Formats: sequence, structure tokens, C-alpha cells
Amino acid sequence: MKKYMTLILTGTIVLLAVVLVGVLTFVKNQPPQQRAFQPVVDIKPMEPDSSIWGQNFPNQWSSLQKTSSNNVDTTYGGSSQFSWLKRDPRQVILFAGYPFSKDYNDDRGHANALTDVQKTKRLNLSHDDETKTTHATCYSCKSSNNPSLWAEMGMAAYDKMFFDQMTPRLDYSIGCANCHEAGTMRLIVTNPALEEALKAQGKDWRTFTRQEMRTVVCANCHVEYYFKGDGKYLTFPWAEGTNIDQIISYYEESGFKDWEYPDTKTPMLKAQHPEYEFFTADSTHFKAGVACADCHMPYVSEGAAKYSSHDVHSPLLNPEAACGQCHTDTEYVIRRVNLIQDQVATTKQSTEDAIIDAINAIKGAAANPNADTALLDQARNLHRKAQFMWDFVSAENSTGFHNPEYALKILAESTNLARQAQMLAAQSVNDMSLLTTGTYYQTTQQ
Amino acid sequence: MKKYMTLILTGTIVLLAVVLVGVLTFVKNQPPQQRAFQPVVDIKPMEPDSSIWGQNFPNQWSSLQKTSSNNVDTTYGGSSQFSWLKRDPRQVILFAGYPFSKDYNDDRGHANALTDVQKTKRLNLSHDDETKTTHATCYSCKSSNNPSLWAEMGMAAYDKMFFDQMTPRLDYSIGCANCHEAGTMRLIVTNPALEEALKAQGKDWRTFTRQEMRTVVCANCHVEYYFKGDGKYLTFPWAEGTNIDQIISYYEESGFKDWEYPDTKTPMLKAQHPEYEFFTADSTHFKAGVACADCHMPYVSEGAAKYSSHDVHSPLLNPEAACGQCHTDTEYVIRRVNLIQDQVATTKQSTEDAIIDAINAIKGAAANPNADTALLDQARNLHRKAQFMWDFVSAENSTGFHNPEYALKILAESTNLARQAQMLAAQSVNDMSLLTTGTYYQTTQQ
Repeated sequence: MKKYMTLILTGTIVLLAVVLVGVLTFVKNQPPQQRAFQPVVDIKPMEPDSSIWGQNFPNQWSSLQKTSSNNVDTTYGGSSQFSWLKRDPRQVILFAGYPFSKDYNDDRGHANALTDVQKTKRLNLSHDDETKTTHATCYSCKSSNNPSLWAEMGMAAYDKMFFDQMTPRLDYSIGCANCHEAGTMRLIVTNPALEEALKAQGKDWRTFTRQEMRTVVCANCHVEYYFKGDGKYLTFPWAEGTNIDQIISYYEESGFKDWEYPDTKTPMLKAQHPEYEFFTADSTHFKAGVACADCHMPYVSEGAAKYSSHDVHSPLLNPEAACGQCHTDTEYVIRRVNLIQDQVATTKQSTEDAIIDAINAIKGAAANPNADTALLDQARNLHRKAQFMWDFVSAENSTGFHNPEYALKILAESTNLARQAQMLAAQSVNDMSLLTTGTYYQTTQQ
Repeated sequence: MKKYMTLILTGTIVLLAVVLVGVLTFVKNQPPQQRAFQPVVDIKPMEPDSSIWGQNFPNQWSSLQKTSSNNVDTTYGGSSQFSWLKRDPRQVILFAGYPFSKDYNDDRGHANALTDVQKTKRLNLSHDDETKTTHATCYSCKSSNNPSLWAEMGMAAYDKMFFDQMTPRLDYSIGCANCHEAGTMRLIVTNPALEEALKAQGKDWRTFTRQEMRTVVCANCHVEYYFKGDGKYLTFPWAEGTNIDQIISYYEESGFKDWEYPDTKTPMLKAQHPEYEFFTADSTHFKAGVACADCHMPYVSEGAAKYSSHDVHSPLLNPEAACGQCHTDTEYVIRRVNLIQDQVATTKQSTEDAIIDAINAIKGAAANPNADTALLDQARNLHRKAQFMWDFVSAENSTGFHNPEYALKILAESTNLARQAQMLAAQSVNDMSLLTTGTYYQTTQQ
């Protein structure tokens, strides 16, 4: 009996050993993506060259590279360099006196950012007049060289340099170092302006969850910002908050202007690309816990590997991967996005017409030396606010979809202010002819 | 061997018979809701007394009865009879010259419809002036006696009668006969005006699916309508379609007006409760296949019975049953609804302020005998349109939630038209003082 027991025990141990060896062999032979990460190379902190990171993360790197050529358009946006000024000539009028009225092309993918900013006709590279010369600040969102340069020289010194002085120091377009910490690969805030803007609100991104960071790292660039003072110091106008009313209030208190509108003398503000502020203003997706990366960098499967695609573009181009993670019927979702964007685009155009009427009225009033300056200044202030509100929606890269109700509410208010600006201008010179509406169409039909 | 086989076969048959009897007994003893419907009473066609239907459908009937007392409010709406004129005194101005400026209470539940319409101070029961006397048409949506009365006398004869002449013939508030066919219980269109409006668009509700009918039967009442001609014939302005632009175009062509605004002489339109038109204008819920009844009459379980609640009210009061059928996180949904309604309510108020400014400007212009009548008429026409658009959103019972983008787009356009109306009025008399804005606050602060 004891002999049998020993035999059974020995047999069991042998069997377990064989199974264990088999399992270990199986695990060892799995493709590397399925196991704990084993780096091929060591990446130095803030390494600007994404191809080095790419040796450890070939899928992410390959997908990032696709942004150089995947320049496909959607109905209202996309990644080709179509001209906004040709698509909607109202913007030539709205940005008159500012470089955006001369050259305003839609942005291409991340890999083209550095090349494209160097080609825009908005640059002024002469060093004759420091206040009118393009500073290096314009490079803030264009290169993975920035994190190490900011660490080395400080952002203030970086921003004080001229654009063309900085050019030789930048080799790479947007890349890994703009959002990741080498070694840990955790998502980090790299833009000092974002760090400062969060701090001004009492926020420390180091306490944020990973899912929060999958939105916050996009705010390294996709925000409203301005160049503060003579040093053109990159600043986000967030001290009071990121809501549009708080941003306008900030600009009102600071008295900042991007340019003066010709003939109306309005101190204007140009909105940049406030995707972060727009999306996080209690949009339905944000409140549901969705991050930017969920839709713009969805997880994709290639063979045994599953990774977050770094081929960042409109989710309308890959709705199954982007929307399909949550929505079962992506065809329905696409129709829905189209309808919302149609509604916002139509309303946006009406707002533009109202602002152009206001501009023409203020022009007329400002040309009159007897104008009531108090009324005229009120008109200018409403023009300033109305156009910034419109631009906040217009420059935001989703034709309202990131936050549809917010977009339409802002446009309704902008239109109201524009019409009031027009009325004040007419009152300031007691000239009824300045109340003409649809002036854009009269101009273009001539 | 053969003997055993016979024994096994006999045993099996006996066993199956016992099981069959057991199953049948079990099924027979289930509560009636779980089995095919067996009527307790026969219901005659168009039976106005819902308590008779209630004998066959006790749960539906019990829940319908709850609408008499479940008069709970939500933030912006609900089922108490709060006064819109007190809640938002702008509406006293907006409806000046029309009975809605004297008495405009929110509606209570279906069971109170008949009583409440008889108590409103909007009625004019004198028979002195037929054009100003309230017709029976006002009862169209208030009683389950209507289907049999329409069948008996025809809607034209019904509508020609005076309100108080019809009163003795109506015993019951809204009930089963308003939406159901006796016997089959299928959902049917009972209001001849809806039948005609659908037919005018080439639609036959008899071809609709049950899910479509769970929205269409609500259109028996929850629609925009007007009283056509001297006979006060109940008519839906849908001949061109149910979109707001198509409805406005219909009214423009017909030249219909509900009343003339005092002192401005604007031919005004009062929007009713266009829930159907609003919701079906490609709202996200409608496009997702959701019917009115899914949210307002959700399925509820009581013991072994599962039935569609006929205690129709805001889904905000029973979100687990109403929203929880599709949405897993109803707390999120409630916050979302609140935010949307806040946005729409704020924008709506700005629109009201703009319309009141327009009204005051047109009043001023109309008082001037030298006014340019062509310009003044243009101002009136824009006032007419702007106010109808605002009212289309305001009178619609969801504070925009049924179709948020549609609501905000309409309000943006309405504000724009109101401001243009104000400018035209000022131009018509060359009077800059008519461009004053915020006149509502100046009036109320005096």
C-alpha cells in the first residue's frame, strides 16, 4: 500500500513539473507585447528624437509617423492644409489687419507641425521692430526639442529669442518627449505654461489620475494662450478659470490685445485652438469620463499587440475604433456628428454676418470725428467680445462637436453682442445707414 | 425483453403525461398578466369612460389616475400649476394683448386637463362677438369624449360650437379612448386634425410600426396647431413639413395671426406645445429610435405584472425607470439634463430681452405718423418670426432637452432677428433712442 502511495506521489510531482515547464515555455515564447515591458534601449530624459523611443515602442512610433501623410479631410475639418480664407471668405474680413487674414490654413498631423509653422506666411522674420517680429514662442507647440530646451534655458529665455534664431535648434516635430517621461513612460505636463496655468488654479497635475492625464497632456498645446509682455512669454489666460466667461474676464482685466482692427480701432483678441477648455466645460463626453485620447488615440489591435494609436486625427476617419469602444451603432453616431456640425456651422455663419455688420458700422462711426467716443468705445468692446466668442467656437477644432450646447450658446450670445455693437456704433454718430444688415453679401456681390 | 420494452414505454408515456398536466396546471395558476389577455368586460368603440377600460387593464388605469394628484415640479417644469407670468414676468410683456398675458399656468397631469381648461381665465364665454368667443376647439385635447363626438358630429361641427355649449357633453378628462382602439388596444390616431396633417404630407399612420405609434399618438395633442377660419377648425400647420422653418413658411403664406400686438401692430403667432415637432426634428433620442412613451411611460414592474406606466410626467421624477432602461448611470444623466436646461434657460432669457427691446422700438416707431411703413412692416415681420421661434422653444415642455442643439440654434436665430427688428424700427423713424437695449430691466427697475 505504501509503495503505491509513493508511486502516486512521485507521479503527481513529475506531472506538475512537466506542466510548469510547459507553461513557462509558452509564456516565454509569447510576443513581447503580451509580457512585461523589456526596453531595448535606454532613453535619456527628454530625448527629442522619437525614433529612439520608437525602438522600445515600435507600434506607437509607427502610428505617430503616419501623421505625416494621413492628411485626410472630413466635412468641416481634417488634416489637409485647406485654406479657411478660401472656404469662408468672411474670415478675411474678420481677421483684417492681422496675419491670419493673409494665411490661415488648416493644420496637418503632428509630424508636420514643425515644417508647417516654418512655412506659414504669418511669420515676420525681420528683426527691425521687436514688437512686430515673430518670437520663438510660436515654436512652443511644434517640436519635441522643446522640453529639453525649456529645462536647459528656461521658458522666459526661450520665448525672448526670435523665431529664426531658434530654428537651428529644433530638429524634430511633435513627438514622444512632449507628453511622456522617458523610462517610466508616464504622461506628464511638459509645457511650463500649462504647469503655471494649472498652478494658478491651485491644481497639481502630479495628483491627477492616468485617465485625467489622457486629456491634460493634450492641453500642453490644444488651448487658448497669448504671448505676455515684450518677452512674449507664453501664458494661458486661466487664472480665473477655463470657462469662456472667465477667460474674457481675464483678458478684460489685463487689457491684452492681439491686434487693433483697422479703421474700427477695436482692440482684438485672436482665439487659438481651445479644445481643452471647450471639451472640459462639462461636455457630455467629458462628464462621462471620456478622455481626448479615447477618441483621438483609440486602442487598436495589430496581431498580438494592442496599443493606443498615435496616429492622432479626427475620429470620423476611424469611427469603429474611436466611437465603437462605447457606441454600438457607429453609423448612427456619424449621422449625429454630421447633424450637430451642420447646425453649428450654419449658426456660426450667421454670427459672422452679424459681426461683419458690426465691423462696418464701427468703421463708419470711427471715421466720423464727431462720434460720441463713450458709445463708440462700448461698441468696440462688444465687437471685441463678440468676435472672441465666435472665434472660440470657430478656431476650436470640432465644429462644435466637442461640446455642442456650449458652442451654440456661445454663438447665440456672440450674435447678440455683435448686433448691440452695431447699434451702439450707429448711435455714436447718429447715422441710421450704419444699421444696414447683410453687409457682407452686399460687399461680395459688388 | 419485449415485456421490459413495453414497461419502459408505458412508464415514459405516463411520466410525460404527468409532466404535461403539471405544466398546464402551473400555467393556469399564473397571474393573468403573464398569460394571453382575457377581457373581463367588452369595451364599446370609443368608450369615453376610462374606468370601464380599467376593468380589463387595472394597472394602466390605476397609473393614469395618479396623474390627478402627482403634481410634482422639476427645476424648470413639472406638473403643478405654477404661473409662468410670475416666474418670468417678461412673458407678461411678450404676450401683451393676448389672454396668455393674463393667465398662463403650467399644465397639470392628464387627469386634470378637462377641469383645468374650464378654469383658465383665458376663456371668453360671452357669445356677443363670435370672432372673440372661445370655441369648443379648445376642448380638442382635453377629453376622452372627443373621439366619439368627432365620429358622431364631425370635427367641423364640433369646432363651430362655443366652448360652454360643449361643456355639458364632456364628462371625462384625457383617457384611454384618446390613443387606443377598443378591443384590439392598438395605438391609433384619434384627432382628425392629426389624421389630416399627416395625410397632407402623404403619410398614413396605419402603416406605422408600433414603436412609431408610441410617439405619434402623443401628436394627437402635443403639437403646434391653430384655429383656421371663422369655424375655428383645428389645423396643424404641417403642410410643408414639421420643421420650424417649414411651419413659419406655412404661416407666412397663410397670413394667419393669433393676435395683433398692441401698439406695435405686429401680427403675432402663439406657439402651442410643439413637443412632437421638436423631438422628431432629428433629436438624438428620436434618431436612436426612442419613443415618447419610452421615457414618459416607461415599463414598470409591480409584483408579477409589467406594464407601461400611464402616470405620464417628467422622466426627471422617475429616472431609474425612465432613463435607466438605456443609461446605466442615471445620476450622470440627471446632471446632464440639468446642465442642458440651464444653458437653454439662460439663452432663452437673453432672447426674451432682445424681443422686448424690439417690441419697445417698434412701439416707438409705430406711434410716429411719419414712419417709413415699408421698414416698419419689415420690423414687424421680424418681430413676428423672432417671437414665434422663441415661443416654439419656450412653450415646448422640456426647456430644450428634447432637442438641445435645435433649441439653441433656434434661439440664436431668434435673437438675431429680434435685434434686426429693433434696428429696422429705429430706421423707420430715424430715431436713435429706439436702439436702447435692456429696456426690460429699465422698465422693471422704475
